[in-house]
Amino acid sequence: MEKGLRPALDGFSSPRAIAVVGASSDPTTIAGLLFANLVDSGFGGVVLPINPHHTEVRGIRAYADLASCPTTPDLVVVCVPADAVIDVVAQAGDFGVGAVCVISAGFAEVGPQGAARQARLVATARERGVRLVGPNCTGILGGVGEGRFNATFSRTLPAAGGAFLLSQSGAVGLAVLEAADARGLGIGAFVSIGNAADVSTNDLLRYWEDESAADVILLYLESIPGPASFLRVAQRLGRRVPIVAVKAGRTVAGRRGAASHTAALSGGDVGVDALLHQAGVIRAGSIDEMLDLATMLSCTRRYSGRRVAIVTNGGGPGILAADACEANGLEVPELAASTAAQLRALLAPEASVANPVDMIASATAAQYGQVTRIVGAESDVDAVMVLFNTPLITRAVEVADEMIAARAVLADDVALVGVFMNRDGAPATLHAAGIASFTSPENASRALARAIAWDERRRRPEGTIPRPAFDVAQARRIVNTAASTGEGWLDTVTVAALLDACGIASVRSRLVSTPEEAEQAQIDFGGTVVIKAAAAIHKSDVGGVRTGITTALDAAAAVRAIRLALVDAGLPDAADKFLVQEQISSGLEMIVGVNRDPLVGPLVVVGRGGTAVEVLNDVAVRVAPLTDHDVDEMVETLRSYPLLTGYRGAAALDVAALRDVLHRISTLVAEIPEIAEIDLNPIFVLEHGVAIADARIRRT
Amino acid sequence: MEKGLRPALDGFSSPRAIAVVGASSDPTTIAGLLFANLVDSGFGGVVLPINPHHTEVRGIRAYADLASCPTTPDLVVVCVPADAVIDVVAQAGDFGVGAVCVISAGFAEVGPQGAARQARLVATARERGVRLVGPNCTGILGGVGEGRFNATFSRTLPAAGGAFLLSQSGAVGLAVLEAADARGLGIGAFVSIGNAADVSTNDLLRYWEDESAADVILLYLESIPGPASFLRVAQRLGRRVPIVAVKAGRTVAGRRGAASHTAALSGGDVGVDALLHQAGVIRAGSIDEMLDLATMLSCTRRYSGRRVAIVTNGGGPGILAADACEANGLEVPELAASTAAQLRALLAPEASVANPVDMIASATAAQYGQVTRIVGAESDVDAVMVLFNTPLITRAVEVADEMIAARAVLADDVALVGVFMNRDGAPATLHAAGIASFTSPENASRALARAIAWDERRRRPEGTIPRPAFDVAQARRIVNTAASTGEGWLDTVTVAALLDACGIASVRSRLVSTPEEAEQAQIDFGGTVVIKAAAAIHKSDVGGVRTGITTALDAAAAVRAIRLALVDAGLPDAADKFLVQEQISSGLEMIVGVNRDPLVGPLVVVGRGGTAVEVLNDVAVRVAPLTDHDVDEMVETLRSYPLLTGYRGAAALDVAALRDVLHRISTLVAEIPEIAEIDLNPIFVLEHGVAIADARIRRT
Repeated sequence: MEKGLRPALDGFSSPRAIAVVGASSDPTTIAGLLFANLVDSGFGGVVLPINPHHTEVRGIRAYADLASCPTTPDLVVVCVPADAVIDVVAQAGDFGVGAVCVISAGFAEVGPQGAARQARLVATARERGVRLVGPNCTGILGGVGEGRFNATFSRTLPAAGGAFLLSQSGAVGLAVLEAADARGLGIGAFVSIGNAADVSTNDLLRYWEDESAADVILLYLESIPGPASFLRVAQRLGRRVPIVAVKAGRTVAGRRGAASHTAALSGGDVGVDALLHQAGVIRAGSIDEMLDLATMLSCTRRYSGRRVAIVTNGGGPGILAADACEANGLEVPELAASTAAQLRALLAPEASVANPVDMIASATAAQYGQVTRIVGAESDVDAVMVLFNTPLITRAVEVADEMIAARAVLADDVALVGVFMNRDGAPATLHAAGIASFTSPENASRALARAIAWDERRRRPEGTIPRPAFDVAQARRIVNTAASTGEGWLDTVTVAALLDACGIASVRSRLVSTPEEAEQAQIDFGGTVVIKAAAAIHKSDVGGVRTGITTALDAAAAVRAIRLALVDAGLPDAADKFLVQEQISSGLEMIVGVNRDPLVGPLVVVGRGGTAVEVLNDVAVRVAPLTDHDVDEMVETLRSYPLLTGYRGAAALDVAALRDVLHRISTLVAEIPEIAEIDLNPIFVLEHGVAIADARIRRT
Repeated sequence: MEKGLRPALDGFSSPRAIAVVGASSDPTTIAGLLFANLVDSGFGGVVLPINPHHTEVRGIRAYADLASCPTTPDLVVVCVPADAVIDVVAQAGDFGVGAVCVISAGFAEVGPQGAARQARLVATARERGVRLVGPNCTGILGGVGEGRFNATFSRTLPAAGGAFLLSQSGAVGLAVLEAADARGLGIGAFVSIGNAADVSTNDLLRYWEDESAADVILLYLESIPGPASFLRVAQRLGRRVPIVAVKAGRTVAGRRGAASHTAALSGGDVGVDALLHQAGVIRAGSIDEMLDLATMLSCTRRYSGRRVAIVTNGGGPGILAADACEANGLEVPELAASTAAQLRALLAPEASVANPVDMIASATAAQYGQVTRIVGAESDVDAVMVLFNTPLITRAVEVADEMIAARAVLADDVALVGVFMNRDGAPATLHAAGIASFTSPENASRALARAIAWDERRRRPEGTIPRPAFDVAQARRIVNTAASTGEGWLDTVTVAALLDACGIASVRSRLVSTPEEAEQAQIDFGGTVVIKAAAAIHKSDVGGVRTGITTALDAAAAVRAIRLALVDAGLPDAADKFLVQEQISSGLEMIVGVNRDPLVGPLVVVGRGGTAVEVLNDVAVRVAPLTDHDVDEMVETLRSYPLLTGYRGAAALDVAALRDVLHRISTLVAEIPEIAEIDLNPIFVLEHGVAIADARIRRT
């Protein structure tokens, strides 16, 4: 962590004295509301309202400026108009304050003038050793015990707890706080990061890694600045503490919103998705799902497996739960005969002792407890999902008490999950006892499945980035000295040389200019050849590819035909060079490619190839450099993976060779940032090795 | 509708006198709870408790039996033990009662003995002209005005309203009632159908079609008895009143639950999904989604299009809403410059007037109203989604009032949707004013998108089932007289004859027994041929197919090689007949097939074909007989559809010929129930016509 950052973050995290510059008694203003919340939060430290026009605010002695304060605050919260902020920060620095949270809006989010103001703000802070949260944020909430404080707009202060929240949107942050409070989820800290002009998401993650007692970290993000650094800290931290993120701006309209919101630079969603996945971050599709995951993971972080026993007092809800579990990749196995017999002795004759265990509507609280213990003790059960539906007589609190008692005797890695479909929801006692509870089986199943997946993943050894043996310096020389077309595409000869330097084999091919040269190439190669335009164009769209040529005569004719087609298509300049290649008629047509995402960097893609890539849409994407795990996962999650491994009696193809190409390409683009784009399509995966039939590479 | 059913359904729907057999004063029993709910519901008609042991129940004069009642009830609710139910039904019939709801459990859901009792129950009712709802149900709720009654276990009686609910699970029904009440959704009627021994889902749908003022119909189903009849009534009714269904038992574990629950016969989910789609039923993935759809559709059923304007007082929620809209297939267009200018004049300088319109946190209720009117009046906007986030000063009720005023001036087919992310949710006034409101933008967007899709679909003309010109009688003769293998597969010659009789062309082929005959066939056909085992086996799995044979010598060798392979694979019986066929090397390899689903009947499938059908997993399924719309939709929703219509410069293929095959196959299996299974794979779609390279047909 940067020098001087840790003491400042201590100030943001556990201040003993907080000054609010602009504090007022009027709760209809932002400053007044925030100050009222701070006072009402029961903060046991010193509160210092700063207001030159008043001697007291809400009965607390006020000061005209920071310098007049009897003590140096650990945290200054600034609520004055934008044009007065820089002066306040300067004064804070002069007074020895290290941590300033700027609530005020009117900075980078309002255009160039605001951006300039923000730059001056940061410069002022840097000069004086002040660290900033914000500007354009809704404040900070945190601390423990006597030190618990709420310096935000949120009228709701959730109970303290293990969920730590960082939000790039103030409104979303406040909505999460309210929703967390409503479902009894404790919040350890909340930081509204606003424009993140200084202290960043990555800074906070690093701090929380060292200093916090977080059970789960929740992120609402509109951008991911410093993606490489984010990847490192999230990978490390996320193995111990699950990180759940909502990344907004998935779509064009969403990004339009984000651009005008916190001045976030947003790339496409594919890259973000890959980055979050590689970082081990659980990406939630909505705030509700994020809170479901927080509920689940704040209760249980260690799971023995995916086998769920469902216990219910209503048949229909049990079926819905079984459907939802299986739809989310969980298993709902039949219970062992001995277990079924125990249940049979315990329950009404109309009850069902399969899985779901339907105790029927007359089920008592005691039966809930007994059945939960019995199925939870079975060696084939990793989690018990207890459904409580609108009761006839039995009360929810009694069922909750029985569940809490059962929780105490179940093994730690057997998850116990409640689903309370009655109007009042789950009794509040459950969460405190480590029993995550939900109001629908669908949400419960999804959260449970994703929590288990997180646990499975963190138990895997970390991946390593292999270093394929090739001469990177030689590859760099080829890229830098090559001629290229106007748009940066390298010519065919350079592409072949570059792939060769990387140790990636292409098919036998020869560049020709005339029908006669094509004849000779066909004769020399023997067998079937392909002839195509050598220029970096979308060849098949303009009739620039001829396949299945088996005679010298046809080879010459093909060159003439392609020439005509290119001229017809308005591409006469492309009509002077042709590539004659061996035609590959076996193996599987795949694609390997690279694109640079403005947000997350080089994206490597692998998938089904050929002309119909977009139609098949069977691709996997990761950010380079790729680890061995990344490559394994990319290949194995393709729908087409079975076609590579010996499908229905066919010979297995050389997946290892495909993996090797991915590692070489990954190394190439990670080492040579001048490579903007690579398109190996098709690359045939053969029984032995691979064969690249067409390759395009673009330089920036 | 069946004779006598309508008066009985009037009795279930709007009784003036209700008898409860088994009524007690003890609210911890089922009968006592139901009777208390009936009394508490304020029902203005006559309530008749039947209990031989008491002269009054809850202060109401009780009768020893039905015959002692001073008036004949329109509805009798039976809560006595299972073994006493049949007598009560007999008495009811003798007393002239037409409608009996049997709450009691202990019938088909508890095994063979219960099933026998249920059969006797139905027989008793039929003999006496009594119609039954149940048994094994939680009761009925409905009526209007003074006639509003709650004869269920539900302590919650939601306000009257346009949502009509039928549930095959009592517990789910009660959960829906509670959830509907919590979100202010009015329920016009609720029928817990239980085991549906007599009155069925289809009966109720037909009744509601004629008699009800339903705005939306909600179904919780575990089975679909009478699928053909369900299809017809749902198609008809669903064009006027949207039908939303949760069909449980999607998965193996879910079906295990369903089998032991309401004695439902459950088939696979693919067939159910196809049937519901063809019926025009909106299938919800959860109870929550069903209620979201009910909320949306009870407010708005006519939509002008998919373009949404988003209005928010918080940037982040606006971005989440934009993401959610686009993810659900809605559009979030930029607003016209003139509109943006109007908004700019109205809003704070920091506000964003793109779409989402971010009025920032200081937005007033008046600004909400003004902006909603302005964007809602724009011709490019079909719906306005108004987000209200945790406010600083502005109150939710004031925003709601402004929305209600705006609703009054907006065109009827411009939808107005509220999203209240604050703790207290949406003010109750909104729904009454026809403004559907939600607590998250994701749920709002999904409901809006699916409601619009329903409206788009019902505006389309109804499909028709074409009758391809072929001789069905001739086809039937071929099927019935054909020899077949043990498992019912027809031999190659019969298959060819049957396809020919249906007017479906196969490729040129010849059945041979020896290498010499294969030689001759290759010579006669010329060009490239395929040779394969003629038996109905998975040929390619056992080396039973040889392709690309261009000489007579190779043809003979292929027959010998296949013989050896079949013997090696333990299939010597299949090694005596071989098919020599023209090899098709152009067009797109597709599959057309038929399977019979035990629940919904013949399922026709079309998709990408070849050996990798399962891997590509690009198929569409519908229940036969197929309408023209069905076939169009099947073909056009395939991921591969672009490959059929002239992809990247390739010639367009003969989609009309593929459609024609689908209609012929559909007609064939609809007319000849003896055909159990058809597998045309591959069927090549060519530039002109199609060519079936392999066909298997199985008879029951």
